[in-house]
Amino acid sequence: MSEGKLILLRHGQSQWNASNQFTGWVDVALTEQGEQEARRGGELLKEQGVLPDVLYTSLLRRAICTAHLALDAADRLWIPVIRDWRLNERHYGALQGLNKAETKEKYGDDQFMAWRRSYDTPPPELASDSEYSQANDPRYSNLDEVPATECLKDVVERFVPYFEEEILPRAKRGETVLIAAHGNSLRALVKHLDGISDADIAELNIPTGIPLVYEIAADGSVKNPGGTYLDPEAAAAGAAAVANQGSK
Amino acid sequence: MSEGKLILLRHGQSQWNASNQFTGWVDVALTEQGEQEARRGGELLKEQGVLPDVLYTSLLRRAICTAHLALDAADRLWIPVIRDWRLNERHYGALQGLNKAETKEKYGDDQFMAWRRSYDTPPPELASDSEYSQANDPRYSNLDEVPATECLKDVVERFVPYFEEEILPRAKRGETVLIAAHGNSLRALVKHLDGISDADIAELNIPTGIPLVYEIAADGSVKNPGGTYLDPEAAAAGAAAVANQGSK
Repeated sequence: MSEGKLILLRHGQSQWNASNQFTGWVDVALTEQGEQEARRGGELLKEQGVLPDVLYTSLLRRAICTAHLALDAADRLWIPVIRDWRLNERHYGALQGLNKAETKEKYGDDQFMAWRRSYDTPPPELASDSEYSQANDPRYSNLDEVPATECLKDVVERFVPYFEEEILPRAKRGETVLIAAHGNSLRALVKHLDGISDADIAELNIPTGIPLVYEIAADGSVKNPGGTYLDPEAAAAGAAAVANQGSK
Repeated sequence: MSEGKLILLRHGQSQWNASNQFTGWVDVALTEQGEQEARRGGELLKEQGVLPDVLYTSLLRRAICTAHLALDAADRLWIPVIRDWRLNERHYGALQGLNKAETKEKYGDDQFMAWRRSYDTPPPELASDSEYSQANDPRYSNLDEVPATECLKDVVERFVPYFEEEILPRAKRGETVLIAAHGNSLRALVKHLDGISDADIAELNIPTGIPLVYEIAADGSVKNPGGTYLDPEAAAAGAAAVANQGSK
């Protein structure tokens, strides 16, 4: 069996990425650009021979469709799939649906950055009767309680234990695991994999559509700290673009 | 919990359906028409409130993509997915890749219909070094032996026990199970569900892209023998078209 790998793949541009709105658990679709990013991600996997044995996705269509298009391009549509809400994007609370630039203007830079990047301060809760609430969404009917807001710490606390129990053992056994997820659920995972502090994680931005590969030893340790982007140049440009969100 | 249901969905038109070639286990893509059929199938599910709780697919992209597009249209992309080779199309042996009309002309009507519709006579074996062989396809690396040909009886013998063990228990518990598969694997299943004889199954044709719903009682019995197509008119026209394959 070859060396285990994790492939982190952030979904391509969504309709609300394009319109600069906070998305969170709202289930918006990819744009055409996002679909192209996903296919390009799959081509990178194929070109570089990093072929997933199994796929994990969130319950959100932008991650599910990104994985579908990437695996189609990589000729790996047939691998087993597991979908789990713990891979979901951070729930953005009352910010869900709001325009990022307008929110920044209204509340000021400090409050805006605190909501976006503070490790442990969640935005205000989203009312359960909001059109952007998931309180009655059937896909979450198995949860004791559907979140009304989350900070990154909440995402770490729901995703990392699931990762350790369900996903990491596969990589330790030598499997290549594709994790198709979101900006903040992948930031939570990278924080864990690279031992990034609560303060420093604010600076980390993950670009869309570019596979980020971690090589995993049999004891579960990371062999290439920081991971390896399959297209490093595009990754650097993409991370800078994410950092600039909130600008008009 | 509501009444259990099975939704049988045959993939939409594939590239080799369009070019009138025997496909079997060759992994060809859908045509644009096939993609439209899949979305229409999903719209029927949504319009009639027949919402899948779980999806089973074969390992072939034409079934996987059909399910993806249908679930996207039905807003159910997030349901759990299980893929298994036992839902695959019948392996068409040495016929894989051949044009149906040319094969009929070359071998005559009787031999042609025997290969297509005989219950227990498989076509000649496909050589493992053929470009159309799956002998070395990684998706089947867990099988003791990759088939070199199959008759419908072989499909019944691999699929029905899997259905009884893995799929039927879900319907008995009240789940709605979407089965996205192929002309012959679904004929094998319908033969079992409706108790059709080895001789009579030759006459049964399943149209593409139109959900066929069986209501399942808690004891596993079928409550609506023959099943119910969600678009009966289109189903009748589609079945007639399948029966005419082999004509130029």
